[in-house]
Amino acid sequence: MRPGSRFHKKRSVKSGLPPGSLVHIGDASNKAVQISVIGYAPDEIEEHQFEQIDQYLDNPCNSPVVWVNVEGVHDVELIRALGEKHTFHPLVLEDIVNTVQRPKIEDYGGYLFIVLKMLRPTEEGGFSSEQISFILGADYLFTFQEGITGDAFDSVRDRIRSSKGKIRGMGVDYLAYALIDAIVDGYFTVLEGFGERMVDVEEDLTLTPDQSSLHLLIGMKKEIIYLRKAVWPLREAISFLERGDSDLLQDATRVYFRDVYDHTVQVIDTVETYRDLLSGMLDLYLSSISNRTNEVMKFLTVIGTIFMPLTFLVGVYGMNFKFFPELEWKYGYFLLWGVMVAVALQMVSYFRKKRWL
Amino acid sequence: MRPGSRFHKKRSVKSGLPPGSLVHIGDASNKAVQISVIGYAPDEIEEHQFEQIDQYLDNPCNSPVVWVNVEGVHDVELIRALGEKHTFHPLVLEDIVNTVQRPKIEDYGGYLFIVLKMLRPTEEGGFSSEQISFILGADYLFTFQEGITGDAFDSVRDRIRSSKGKIRGMGVDYLAYALIDAIVDGYFTVLEGFGERMVDVEEDLTLTPDQSSLHLLIGMKKEIIYLRKAVWPLREAISFLERGDSDLLQDATRVYFRDVYDHTVQVIDTVETYRDLLSGMLDLYLSSISNRTNEVMKFLTVIGTIFMPLTFLVGVYGMNFKFFPELEWKYGYFLLWGVMVAVALQMVSYFRKKRWL
Amino acid sequence: MRPGSRFHKKRSVKSGLPPGSLVHIGDASNKAVQISVIGYAPDEIEEHQFEQIDQYLDNPCNSPVVWVNVEGVHDVELIRALGEKHTFHPLVLEDIVNTVQRPKIEDYGGYLFIVLKMLRPTEEGGFSSEQISFILGADYLFTFQEGITGDAFDSVRDRIRSSKGKIRGMGVDYLAYALIDAIVDGYFTVLEGFGERMVDVEEDLTLTPDQSSLHLLIGMKKEIIYLRKAVWPLREAISFLERGDSDLLQDATRVYFRDVYDHTVQVIDTVETYRDLLSGMLDLYLSSISNRTNEVMKFLTVIGTIFMPLTFLVGVYGMNFKFFPELEWKYGYFLLWGVMVAVALQMVSYFRKKRWL
Amino acid sequence: MRPGSRFHKKRSVKSGLPPGSLVHIGDASNKAVQISVIGYAPDEIEEHQFEQIDQYLDNPCNSPVVWVNVEGVHDVELIRALGEKHTFHPLVLEDIVNTVQRPKIEDYGGYLFIVLKMLRPTEEGGFSSEQISFILGADYLFTFQEGITGDAFDSVRDRIRSSKGKIRGMGVDYLAYALIDAIVDGYFTVLEGFGERMVDVEEDLTLTPDQSSLHLLIGMKKEIIYLRKAVWPLREAISFLERGDSDLLQDATRVYFRDVYDHTVQVIDTVETYRDLLSGMLDLYLSSISNRTNEVMKFLTVIGTIFMPLTFLVGVYGMNFKFFPELEWKYGYFLLWGVMVAVALQMVSYFRKKRWL
Amino acid sequence: MRPGSRFHKKRSVKSGLPPGSLVHIGDASNKAVQISVIGYAPDEIEEHQFEQIDQYLDNPCNSPVVWVNVEGVHDVELIRALGEKHTFHPLVLEDIVNTVQRPKIEDYGGYLFIVLKMLRPTEEGGFSSEQISFILGADYLFTFQEGITGDAFDSVRDRIRSSKGKIRGMGVDYLAYALIDAIVDGYFTVLEGFGERMVDVEEDLTLTPDQSSLHLLIGMKKEIIYLRKAVWPLREAISFLERGDSDLLQDATRVYFRDVYDHTVQVIDTVETYRDLLSGMLDLYLSSISNRTNEVMKFLTVIGTIFMPLTFLVGVYGMNFKFFPELEWKYGYFLLWGVMVAVALQMVSYFRKKRWL
Repeated sequence: MRPGSRFHKKRSVKSGLPPGSLVHIGDASNKAVQISVIGYAPDEIEEHQFEQIDQYLDNPCNSPVVWVNVEGVHDVELIRALGEKHTFHPLVLEDIVNTVQRPKIEDYGGYLFIVLKMLRPTEEGGFSSEQISFILGADYLFTFQEGITGDAFDSVRDRIRSSKGKIRGMGVDYLAYALIDAIVDGYFTVLEGFGERMVDVEEDLTLTPDQSSLHLLIGMKKEIIYLRKAVWPLREAISFLERGDSDLLQDATRVYFRDVYDHTVQVIDTVETYRDLLSGMLDLYLSSISNRTNEVMKFLTVIGTIFMPLTFLVGVYGMNFKFFPELEWKYGYFLLWGVMVAVALQMVSYFRKKRWL
Repeated sequence: MRPGSRFHKKRSVKSGLPPGSLVHIGDASNKAVQISVIGYAPDEIEEHQFEQIDQYLDNPCNSPVVWVNVEGVHDVELIRALGEKHTFHPLVLEDIVNTVQRPKIEDYGGYLFIVLKMLRPTEEGGFSSEQISFILGADYLFTFQEGITGDAFDSVRDRIRSSKGKIRGMGVDYLAYALIDAIVDGYFTVLEGFGERMVDVEEDLTLTPDQSSLHLLIGMKKEIIYLRKAVWPLREAISFLERGDSDLLQDATRVYFRDVYDHTVQVIDTVETYRDLLSGMLDLYLSSISNRTNEVMKFLTVIGTIFMPLTFLVGVYGMNFKFFPELEWKYGYFLLWGVMVAVALQMVSYFRKKRWL
Repeated sequence: MRPGSRFHKKRSVKSGLPPGSLVHIGDASNKAVQISVIGYAPDEIEEHQFEQIDQYLDNPCNSPVVWVNVEGVHDVELIRALGEKHTFHPLVLEDIVNTVQRPKIEDYGGYLFIVLKMLRPTEEGGFSSEQISFILGADYLFTFQEGITGDAFDSVRDRIRSSKGKIRGMGVDYLAYALIDAIVDGYFTVLEGFGERMVDVEEDLTLTPDQSSLHLLIGMKKEIIYLRKAVWPLREAISFLERGDSDLLQDATRVYFRDVYDHTVQVIDTVETYRDLLSGMLDLYLSSISNRTNEVMKFLTVIGTIFMPLTFLVGVYGMNFKFFPELEWKYGYFLLWGVMVAVALQMVSYFRKKRWL
Repeated sequence: MRPGSRFHKKRSVKSGLPPGSLVHIGDASNKAVQISVIGYAPDEIEEHQFEQIDQYLDNPCNSPVVWVNVEGVHDVELIRALGEKHTFHPLVLEDIVNTVQRPKIEDYGGYLFIVLKMLRPTEEGGFSSEQISFILGADYLFTFQEGITGDAFDSVRDRIRSSKGKIRGMGVDYLAYALIDAIVDGYFTVLEGFGERMVDVEEDLTLTPDQSSLHLLIGMKKEIIYLRKAVWPLREAISFLERGDSDLLQDATRVYFRDVYDHTVQVIDTVETYRDLLSGMLDLYLSSISNRTNEVMKFLTVIGTIFMPLTFLVGVYGMNFKFFPELEWKYGYFLLWGVMVAVALQMVSYFRKKRWL
Repeated sequence: MRPGSRFHKKRSVKSGLPPGSLVHIGDASNKAVQISVIGYAPDEIEEHQFEQIDQYLDNPCNSPVVWVNVEGVHDVELIRALGEKHTFHPLVLEDIVNTVQRPKIEDYGGYLFIVLKMLRPTEEGGFSSEQISFILGADYLFTFQEGITGDAFDSVRDRIRSSKGKIRGMGVDYLAYALIDAIVDGYFTVLEGFGERMVDVEEDLTLTPDQSSLHLLIGMKKEIIYLRKAVWPLREAISFLERGDSDLLQDATRVYFRDVYDHTVQVIDTVETYRDLLSGMLDLYLSSISNRTNEVMKFLTVIGTIFMPLTFLVGVYGMNFKFFPELEWKYGYFLLWGVMVAVALQMVSYFRKKRWL
């Protein structure tokens, strides 16, 4: 994971441009943009699917609740046309196409602008991040997805179609809640996968503390740093919705935003806990290495200490002095063996006592 | 302890479901759910025990104070029926059966919803955690236990039955206080056990600093991380009760909630202190290992340094040069021994001076 | 120091008891409880000393300012009788006999309840802690000491008797100030002793960094953890008195409480500074050990590196090959010595250059 | 990078001078000061360029919006003359020429005084910092640059000249926004470069963990410390503008300041993330070194352990005892080789089992 | 530097004394106390110098602004007499003579009491600290210096005498500002010296990482801990002046206090930055040591690994077996040399590949 690459997807290309300049910053996509419109009331529902902005502009939807989902934000002309039609502020449009925003909520009077990050587990075990923008008006909701990792809102769409739960009977703010809730639910899935990988890495570290498991661990520490960066601002943004400071949020919906706020706090808690656990795992790794060095050291010392005196002794009797009484003794050789065995045993018992063996 | 397993008891099964969907998340149980009803006034008391929700619905209790305790939250149909009967909010019911909530308090107007974690020491020396939910109305209190580790409220029940203390003369908020106090008291028991285990591990680390005591220590660090996660939100929740912001809380009871708040702060203090102490123990362990490596090192150096020159010397006189004057000397051999003993003593005294011996 | 023992003096014996149950938690004492009553006005003073609660009840004191000091809180019946006589809240009495409270202040309307910890240096160099409770009414002050380490208030008593300073002319809140000031002054004494021990340990660590000084250091880190736990809540409690939120506190006394608050902040500052210094000392210790290992290592390397080639050389000329020209040379032996000395000098100068010698 | 040099560009030369003394603190410059004046309205624009303060004073500009940019603050007489002409407070002038200010905003009633730091990537890979001061009045804006690294405001000047965007139709506060936005955009460029260097250093550390990559890493940690010092106060300053507390800020501009505030928060987030990542890299480096030491250690142990017993054995048979049965055996020599090979293989397989080979 | 000595200059001697007891705590001084009085108005000035308190009392000064500077606070009787004359609160006098106060500001209604620490670089490279107390009334200012390191206010005195700047035309609060500004300016001088020493120590650590540079580093860490303790409370105190909560502070002066507040924040910033840099230097030191150990280790391993097999080989051919074919070969000796050179080269190339050489 390249630390630089995640943040600055060429953000610097915008340097010097006036505010409101629409420049797409993010992963380039060739897919056509999909505009899907769902309008509904407790007892009616209509759905449309467009690929061209003109089709969309020509087919206004007059249901009490209108949800326009745009999949793909790389077509800046489409976003501009849509923004002009509904007179959204240029800064809002700029933030939609710039996919390196941090999660936030902004009150523009007639509508709320919300930016969130959707997390999805990837096949390799990590996770990818996609920016979702919301424009929540009195009777409409626009959602903008990057469209890289597939649509996240199918379950909500199904609930609308099948009129499951109370979603058809509630306003557009409840719809926003349902979608945000779906996004935050995805965080739990990512964290579950993360937790499972942590267990694997920990076992690895305990059994075979080598460089490769260390790199896995360091990689997970980096991921948790990014996760923190993604979830902390979320708390502030959703807390705004929970307080219900805007007229666009009905009292009946507030209790639901409190619920999703609660989930957010739980996500943050878990991220912080994982961070602490990863720090503990690094400590464990380092002390394992220290331990191992110590153990190897002791082995070397024991071997060296046993054989050095013995080698000295045999060296003594390899000398060529003319006058060397012991060499003449009949059982000198066997006596020496006896001495050497005694010395060796002595030292082994000393090391046993010192717990080096 | 698997870090993942404690948190995400398959929380992800809920992804995509509408809010208020009742899905039991937690340890599965086969035991039948027990509903026990106690109604009382200063001079009267009635008790009922049901296993079926119908029995319960057919036998309403009309005492001034009614306490309904539900042991077991895995039977979602029972919870749903009970919730519909008393018109509790669907989100409340959802949180009751989802046992991975963090401690919190929520004001639903007509009633307060409180979630706490009850801690119980386990036989292996750790602790288990069980979720207890409270619904506190004007004249009733519902408590929901997971029912895994046995009933926690016997002492309070006894006080009601025997009319000990002032509990019979006070309202339902005092009953809630008594139950919460019993839960917080359990925290002290868990912390006492934890403290005793810490002392054992510390002695272990000081006497024999090996991998196994390190693993014990790392395990306790993990436990304290979970404990922190459980007790910090408790403070906030009980602080709400202490401030007495709700009409459901009488002024006379406030002083008791202040008392339990005080205990909570003390629990948090102790947890933080234990955390600091555990960090200190890890430092101690690591420096013990460093020390030991250093000590072994010095031993090796001393042995090597004494025998290397001596071995060199005996090697010299083992050479086969034709012209080798010393070998011809009569007392050459004994002279060499003298030299070697002198060299060895010299070095030993040098090491003594350097404090390596 | 056993971490568990300091906190949970069998606090768990209270589990399951109703609030207001008087159970003494603390060090058992056999001494008889002493009740001493001092009543005074600017120009009068009366003193009484009782050992029985009945004597006390039979001899009411009617001075404008009445100070009742109870030394020993293990006689719960006495405390209960006293509490009933003056209608103190049961929770107050419970906290008085439970000596594991954290410092706090509570406003009970007619009186303030204050719990503090008094610190006393012990002979072994550490410190002991004793709980002091205050009940401050409009014209009376009750103080409860554990009575383990002797009376702390003699200096204040002397000032009352000799009418030194303005104490006789001020109200009961000034008396409370004088006593709290005496307690906080004791903190400075403890910290002075602590600071002196720190200097000793530091010198120890610098001169002879071994296990024993490390254990001293770790022990002091533990002590400072307990000190922090004792002094941080103090700040909050005394800040209440400084703000003067209660009618029981006169404006003229506020400036004195500001003074004692100031001292408290200074105590906390010092504790935090000591904590930082202790961390620095651990760093110093660890780098000393690292340094020493490094130094020993270099010595071993130098010895090994000098003698290994030499030993190899003498080994060469100890071989028994039939055809071995050098052995026949007349000055072969002396030549070899020349070569070996040259090699050794070469290596020594190399190590000098590398700063290993 | 010398830690001292960045901060105290001889700040102490000012000790003892009265407030408002104009002393230039910063890098000396020989370039002539450039004063450029741009006045504009939606449909008109005038530009002037002066090198002498008299020329400037003689040519007042009467456009609705006047922007005076001063490049070079080392000519204190010029600054003083300009300040006197427009009656700016002496402290403002003092801060303009003292280029070691921290970012701040100060409300002087009739005008706002803003100090920011502009960051520019340097060719060697680091970044340089230049102080930019703003004086924002009702219809004029003064900007003061140090003029070391070239003009930063060209893009804004182009937008004014070409009437691109809405800048010509807005007030002087929008102009201030546009310039501040250009500065904050520069931060992203610096951070991008920083991120890329981090990736390089990390690869370096992983592949060849030596002193030189460590020094790079330590150097980057220092840079991030300076970056933090530069960006944290920025947040506070721009938050003032976002709140719009001054009459000089129009409501329509507030949303733009919110946007630049948002960017600032993002910059701080990124700086904090980089800091965490750098800490992780140091951990990685240290454990790589530990690992390597461990690996080398194991190699030494293996070699030593294999050859020590063998050398001992050949020493035994080099002894000169008169009575030495094995030496007489016909196949003694070959037998010994067999024994030695067996011992060596045995040990190799033991080390394999222990994972030391 | 003895950690204990700096704080508790026998503070415990005050234990048990009533509040307002004047006991000098600080470095004893034999110098006579100097009382210097300066009275001034825009167009007049008078100066007096006294050594006796009676002289002072007999010569009242009636200028609109009166500044009384007392150099030396060890003569408690003089302070008491002065305090009684001007009816200062006893606690104020107590704090003046007790020179271990922390920086603070206290509002006594008719006057403000301010305590600051003046820092002065010492010749050995560190800094000394002296307590300065201010009593700021409506038309008078008292300043009390310890008088150890010489007078700090000469530059302000000069400005008054020569009527430089606007000091003569402003009130007594501006005088207080000028003096406080002079003190805070001194902090920058100390920090500059500190920064320069840091650079030296860092170079030392990089070139020759030994115990002595470590001790310098640890010493600087201690100094920065004391500096933090001195400057953090300063912020709070000066922030009071900046807010201008007291009637004694005129609106025109507030902007100057904002300036000095700004400087204070800059001082704190610098101290925190230095602290971070010092931590980084310790990391650098520790990894240098690790690196060096690693390097030495590798050298030892290489030498050992090359010579151990060779020594074994020459040992083989030193054996005395009767039947030993190789010894009979004509070119056995030269063949062996060939083998040994080949083995050595082989190993050197292996180590080159492993980057151990």
